[in-house]
Amino acid sequence: MQPTLDQSISLLARTPATLNALLRDLPDAFARQNEGGDSWDAVAIVGHLICGERTDWVPRARIILQHGESRPFDPFDMQGHVREIQGKSINQLLDEFVHWRNRNLIELRAWKLQPADLDKRGLHPSLGSVTLGQMLSTWAAHDLSHLHQLSRVLAHPYREPVGSWGQFLGVLQCSGHSATD
Amino acid sequence: MQPTLDQSISLLARTPATLNALLRDLPDAFARQNEGGDSWDAVAIVGHLICGERTDWVPRARIILQHGESRPFDPFDMQGHVREIQGKSINQLLDEFVHWRNRNLIELRAWKLQPADLDKRGLHPSLGSVTLGQMLSTWAAHDLSHLHQLSRVLAHPYREPVGSWGQFLGVLQCSGHSATD
Repeated sequence: MQPTLDQSISLLARTPATLNALLRDLPDAFARQNEGGDSWDAVAIVGHLICGERTDWVPRARIILQHGESRPFDPFDMQGHVREIQGKSINQLLDEFVHWRNRNLIELRAWKLQPADLDKRGLHPSLGSVTLGQMLSTWAAHDLSHLHQLSRVLAHPYREPVGSWGQFLGVLQCSGHSATD
Repeated sequence: MQPTLDQSISLLARTPATLNALLRDLPDAFARQNEGGDSWDAVAIVGHLICGERTDWVPRARIILQHGESRPFDPFDMQGHVREIQGKSINQLLDEFVHWRNRNLIELRAWKLQPADLDKRGLHPSLGSVTLGQMLSTWAAHDLSHLHQLSRVLAHPYREPVGSWGQFLGVLQCSGHSATD
């Protein structure tokens, strides 16, 4: 299958409720444990998703629609979550994420994008020329990538307690795929 | 951290709402697409989780509490979901999962397990001697393992549409860790 824009929007619209179910009221022992070193905990991941809503997906889509490739996207700050999460609880961050995601999906739907719009191009600071359609697909897949990471981060403290069952649990075999997911 | 039994129960209790948020009313185009070959789609994964509720975790815990190592667990049927999902929609399967999970957590809580109970041993057909504590930890981690898998299965159709962004998306680098997760 090739997901349509409507299908991607329907996935994007599910993420706030998915994160609420998984993370709201989660004790800090879980929400603030990471996979060691400077890896991200659940709080950092939600902070990163908020940064994406504020500065990445919809702001970049506006640049494509208004300027095409004549104005490159602003670089995304992969450390932006550090300031974003300062002094906030997991529940506050979830509330902010819901607010931003809803607002962004309202704007995206209001654009009433047509198939030809999805071929419009923008200039990514490291990837070069990309299309609006690729970016909106990436927005949806990016949610799933961080859900993939979240399940692994939450499973991390179970590596010892599961004993010999660990060999059957794929999530405990996954060592991540980059510094940030 | 070492998750306590209460913390594991609180994770187990979140899974029905997480799966509902992610999967309820999901179009078949997503719910019935897999990662190729005989890999599992979202429908198969929920079917497998139902099988676990019906025949694995709580039934095996009962065996440990009643018989210890004198009666090995019945082997788990890794193909049990094939019959479980026959003719059912994703929503019907989610309803069944919620029913079984709630029922099992009521039974687990009613046992009022004490720390010494978690050291009680049972006999796994391939792993040998295991403790009740290890098995209950595995139950929680197993949910997260299939959430990890689900995020990857749902992201699968985005591999082409994201274009050059694919290199930044960890979930698209993950090739799974076994035939079933």
